[in-house]
Amino acid sequence: MSARVTAAEVARAAGVSRSAVSRTFTPGSSVSTSTRNRIEAVAARLGYRPNALARTLITRRSRIIGVVMAAIDNPFHAQLLQCLDAALQARGLAMLLRGAARPEMTDELIHHLLSYQVDGVIVASGLFSSSAAKACVGVATPVVMLDRLMRAAGASAVGSDNRAGARMAAEHLVALGRRRIAFMSGTPGISTSSERAHGFLDGLAEAGLAPIAIASGRYEYAAGQGAAEALLAHAPDAIFCENDLMAMAVLDVARARGVRVPDDLAVIGFDDIPAAALPAYALTTVAQDARAMADAAAALLEERIEKPARRASRRLIACTLVRRRSA
Amino acid sequence: MSARVTAAEVARAAGVSRSAVSRTFTPGSSVSTSTRNRIEAVAARLGYRPNALARTLITRRSRIIGVVMAAIDNPFHAQLLQCLDAALQARGLAMLLRGAARPEMTDELIHHLLSYQVDGVIVASGLFSSSAAKACVGVATPVVMLDRLMRAAGASAVGSDNRAGARMAAEHLVALGRRRIAFMSGTPGISTSSERAHGFLDGLAEAGLAPIAIASGRYEYAAGQGAAEALLAHAPDAIFCENDLMAMAVLDVARARGVRVPDDLAVIGFDDIPAAALPAYALTTVAQDARAMADAAAALLEERIEKPARRASRRLIACTLVRRRSA
Repeated sequence: MSARVTAAEVARAAGVSRSAVSRTFTPGSSVSTSTRNRIEAVAARLGYRPNALARTLITRRSRIIGVVMAAIDNPFHAQLLQCLDAALQARGLAMLLRGAARPEMTDELIHHLLSYQVDGVIVASGLFSSSAAKACVGVATPVVMLDRLMRAAGASAVGSDNRAGARMAAEHLVALGRRRIAFMSGTPGISTSSERAHGFLDGLAEAGLAPIAIASGRYEYAAGQGAAEALLAHAPDAIFCENDLMAMAVLDVARARGVRVPDDLAVIGFDDIPAAALPAYALTTVAQDARAMADAAAALLEERIEKPARRASRRLIACTLVRRRSA
Repeated sequence: MSARVTAAEVARAAGVSRSAVSRTFTPGSSVSTSTRNRIEAVAARLGYRPNALARTLITRRSRIIGVVMAAIDNPFHAQLLQCLDAALQARGLAMLLRGAARPEMTDELIHHLLSYQVDGVIVASGLFSSSAAKACVGVATPVVMLDRLMRAAGASAVGSDNRAGARMAAEHLVALGRRRIAFMSGTPGISTSSERAHGFLDGLAEAGLAPIAIASGRYEYAAGQGAAEALLAHAPDAIFCENDLMAMAVLDVARARGVRVPDDLAVIGFDDIPAAALPAYALTTVAQDARAMADAAAALLEERIEKPARRASRRLIACTLVRRRSA
């Protein structure tokens, strides 16, 4: 073990500044290749290893951000996680990740993350109770909710402008001349789902329309198949789905029944996951900007870490309609 | 701030053992609901917050595992990450995650993870140089490579039995009577790719066959489309692809050209990502067992953390052929 070699000793032996040593061991920091090579060689020779945890005890900053995320294998969540990783790395922050197998676990996971003295917490696509919010406020740890805009005391929030996005989908279907429009909702009780529902119903109402049928597909492909069967029984000429996985289920069920898309049935999804662009689906969808969402969450959190007195705030990221063949 | 309240004080006030307090704040630990509720109420009243980092300085164990993963938004990687999260949580270990935007970053990211005094590192689907391996050996931090079996001094490794899996694909195509068999490889220089290539070529050779054409699709859908065009120019009656994304590209290109699957062309992929089961693809594929891989990686790492003298070892996880409509 050689934990006692200090950065100052490495700097002296390499003939560089203390700051150059620090930058060499901070990913994303700027340092020339030749300087980096020299410092790494000296550090290896002396057995130097930077100790981020010891630094934590001095600065009271761990530079670690706790992230709670539900359903990592949902394609949109995986995109969001990838963007979040990039946004945090760009700020020199590390990510302590906990997946929430069940949304009810979110509180427990946040408590556990807090025990690692994280500088802040991002709750991505999970549920968040007021007791968890209180725990964060009690220890003065800033929290940002990503992709869920539940009201929780003291938590900042970043999400897509789901309402405007879903309204765009309604307006597009109306403009295409569709009148027998059905609606597949996501998971009841989740903010994104009710926001999209409101936006879509508003958009239809403006044209004097209402959905001819509504069913929930719980944001999943398999549940979406059942909901698609239920909706197709009403012979709609369009279906808007609150996410792409459910819209893909609609396309597959329609194909199996010989319903022609988009002639007989127009279909619009939400998210723009990579599979939406596959030729077998070519799904028209409301795209969420995962990169902008992740960047905004990291920036909001960093701001609140730097300026703890600042109040919680919200940021809405615009969606765009991506037109493919399904509508 | 109330960071000075100790677990012993909480235990005294709640009339429970110190260990019950500790278990209450360790996710996955066993403690009765009534005891947990009593302890949480007392902890909230006293303002107690467990400090995992302070514990680290005493025990020299952080209970944090560093994970480096490339391309988190690759569907198989997202599955693997989800299973890894579950496997680590089940062992009371936290995950410090770093995505590697480029494989060459892996070394730098490992160095950075080491600065957080992680107990061990899992390198999942990244590249791993011998200098990074040396850094881990130098600080006595065990490393497990997941889904990459590169030879690196001191690193344990867990991977699918890619060779046997790809051989199964060859045997299945031969048994179906296919003789004009083409092969789409993944990324050159990556161990999984060369293992699958060896297994597939061995399986064909046993039947006295060799591929009529070979092209690389770099494990991606878009590159797979170009490679599919190149292979279809040789009029094969079967194509084996080293992952599912490339096989889906083959199916889409074949569909666009009017090539009938599986009558004119049998297609087999590798991974069994969720999209492989979609009716639009119904892809026959060699399934990797992401859960078993993640469990084995966590178990191997824990074993080496507990018994540092133990030598690095390897574990191969069996694959299975999942038969759907494409072959």
